[in-house]
Amino acid sequence: MPVRPLMRLLRLVFACPRFRFCFVTIQAIAWTPSAGVRIIDQRALPDAEIMRDLESAEAVADAIRTLQVRGAPLIGIAAAMGLVAGMRDGRGSPRAAFLDRLAPLVALLGAARPTAVNLRWALERMRQVAEATPGDGSALWERLHAEATAIWEEDRAMCRRIGEHGLGLLTNGANVLTHCNTGALATGGIGTALAPIYLAHEQGRKVHVYVDETRPLLQGSRLTTWELMHAGIACTLITDGAAATLMRQAKVDMVLVGADRICANGDFANKIGTYGLAVLARHHGVPFYCAAPWSTVDASLADGDLIPIEQRASTEVTLLAGRAIAPDGATALNPAFDVTPARYVTGFITDRGVVQPPFGT
Amino acid sequence: MPVRPLMRLLRLVFACPRFRFCFVTIQAIAWTPSAGVRIIDQRALPDAEIMRDLESAEAVADAIRTLQVRGAPLIGIAAAMGLVAGMRDGRGSPRAAFLDRLAPLVALLGAARPTAVNLRWALERMRQVAEATPGDGSALWERLHAEATAIWEEDRAMCRRIGEHGLGLLTNGANVLTHCNTGALATGGIGTALAPIYLAHEQGRKVHVYVDETRPLLQGSRLTTWELMHAGIACTLITDGAAATLMRQAKVDMVLVGADRICANGDFANKIGTYGLAVLARHHGVPFYCAAPWSTVDASLADGDLIPIEQRASTEVTLLAGRAIAPDGATALNPAFDVTPARYVTGFITDRGVVQPPFGT
Repeated sequence: MPVRPLMRLLRLVFACPRFRFCFVTIQAIAWTPSAGVRIIDQRALPDAEIMRDLESAEAVADAIRTLQVRGAPLIGIAAAMGLVAGMRDGRGSPRAAFLDRLAPLVALLGAARPTAVNLRWALERMRQVAEATPGDGSALWERLHAEATAIWEEDRAMCRRIGEHGLGLLTNGANVLTHCNTGALATGGIGTALAPIYLAHEQGRKVHVYVDETRPLLQGSRLTTWELMHAGIACTLITDGAAATLMRQAKVDMVLVGADRICANGDFANKIGTYGLAVLARHHGVPFYCAAPWSTVDASLADGDLIPIEQRASTEVTLLAGRAIAPDGATALNPAFDVTPARYVTGFITDRGVVQPPFGT
Repeated sequence: MPVRPLMRLLRLVFACPRFRFCFVTIQAIAWTPSAGVRIIDQRALPDAEIMRDLESAEAVADAIRTLQVRGAPLIGIAAAMGLVAGMRDGRGSPRAAFLDRLAPLVALLGAARPTAVNLRWALERMRQVAEATPGDGSALWERLHAEATAIWEEDRAMCRRIGEHGLGLLTNGANVLTHCNTGALATGGIGTALAPIYLAHEQGRKVHVYVDETRPLLQGSRLTTWELMHAGIACTLITDGAAATLMRQAKVDMVLVGADRICANGDFANKIGTYGLAVLARHHGVPFYCAAPWSTVDASLADGDLIPIEQRASTEVTLLAGRAIAPDGATALNPAFDVTPARYVTGFITDRGVVQPPFGT
């Protein structure tokens, strides 16, 4: 299903003055008519807007592992939906056989990426629902389908609540600096850190976003600018190294980032580069907010030292679009995330409000 | 002249245990036999090692503008040598005609890039020498040739003195973090910020370098890792956003950067991203040193607010190797440099010693 013609049409509609405060957000995930998982392949953006229909749990796990689908909330939704897609053949099975088949798929999907807690949170919820539901494979599958849809719908609603809670923190004309992608492409709805920005724009407030390109995988330049431009929100792309000087020049009113896992004490993991922004924001007196759904809280971890940090292939740093940007044989470190201690965070914008640690369950 | 076979040969020689503390440094610039300017085209590294012979001042100005030749000291040397190459036809001219022709070439070369002061410093020195030299075009040209060679030779000696002065700051086993390229590819010798590292390695001390890739033009990944690997110095490439977390993990003993212009009060301009490193180093108690030849001091500027900052094309951020990495029409900021206030600098490693501002002439 081509996205570009659809977006062109929607942009024409919304270009009409009556709709100037309406906006176009991307839908990053959907059911196919046969209960497969339809995604936008985020690796191909912004070059190509490719939809993929994933027909098995294996295909969904692979899509998560290879970042076709990314963003902590979205991979939770994708994993839940992938479990449903993968269990379609089990609808004719007796209850025990269905549950026997479910367990390895939960394990497979849960192992696709290590850092974001939403993935395991969503799968654990699905597993518990299956066990608590009476009946045979058909009944269990229907219940799982409903539960995955509920996870998605709840995420959409959570995004909106995050947006509403964060909206009060955004002054008119605010310049917000963000990192990575925390918008519609990272969630089932309008995003986490981008949600207040979408709502401000929807209400006709002026807002401008500085977008860190976010090396190595360029989620900022490839994804965040793409979705903000689709929505008609003013944005300026910068290299990650330029953020400090913008803060020194007082061009940044607020830093707004997402989270992949938040510990009980408020330390949180997010895309590599986030911690540096937090230190710079503190140094320059710029408010630094972390926006995330409550499902990102992992109260089982006391502090950030306990968060497993995914180390990805060094070729993500040394190659770009297949071209070598470092010498053959160069050693590169590629931690996908860093940990920001809670003391740097002005506030956590969640679906339960703007809150401070410690966080219970 | 192909570099790769030569480097292979030298590496074989130096792989011999007798030579294990010797090292191979790159020669970034040279005279051609006919007094043209031979350079390594740094845009093509590390993909291809291409030597170019530049036969006119215009060709040298273009090479500086397009970053075939870069690095504050090296562009000063290149401009002086380019002036000589461009004046070869004036050797038969009378004195007045020679000087009349010299002035526009000085202006052309001086306008190639705005931030580094070494460019204008070298050209002003050449201009003064020409005016102070008696005789006709032939005598003036010979004097300019000798002066350009002297600028180059002095730079080579300055690099070594910077290295010697900085060496005492490097403990055995030190982990040094650096940004951009400040080595043999940025100077006529063994570099500025990399000079102490080359000397430490030469003396058999253990040293390991974390290399910021340095977006947008990736001088760290393309050039610094390339020359360090040629020299057999241990290095690890990181994205610019990963530096903060390495400092938090106490993996960085020292930050060592170069400078394109140093003001009287010690504020200095260097590659975008330097200021952020300075703040992070301060925050984590990591010593932060700026290494530069004395010719980088511009005592005519009281402070960093007066340094002109080159704004380069946004396509350096939005395209990579011709491929779009941001949507069509995305707005991007691309300041080539930032300014680090003197108060963040532990010390300035110069050819005159490790010094503190204020700086006179």
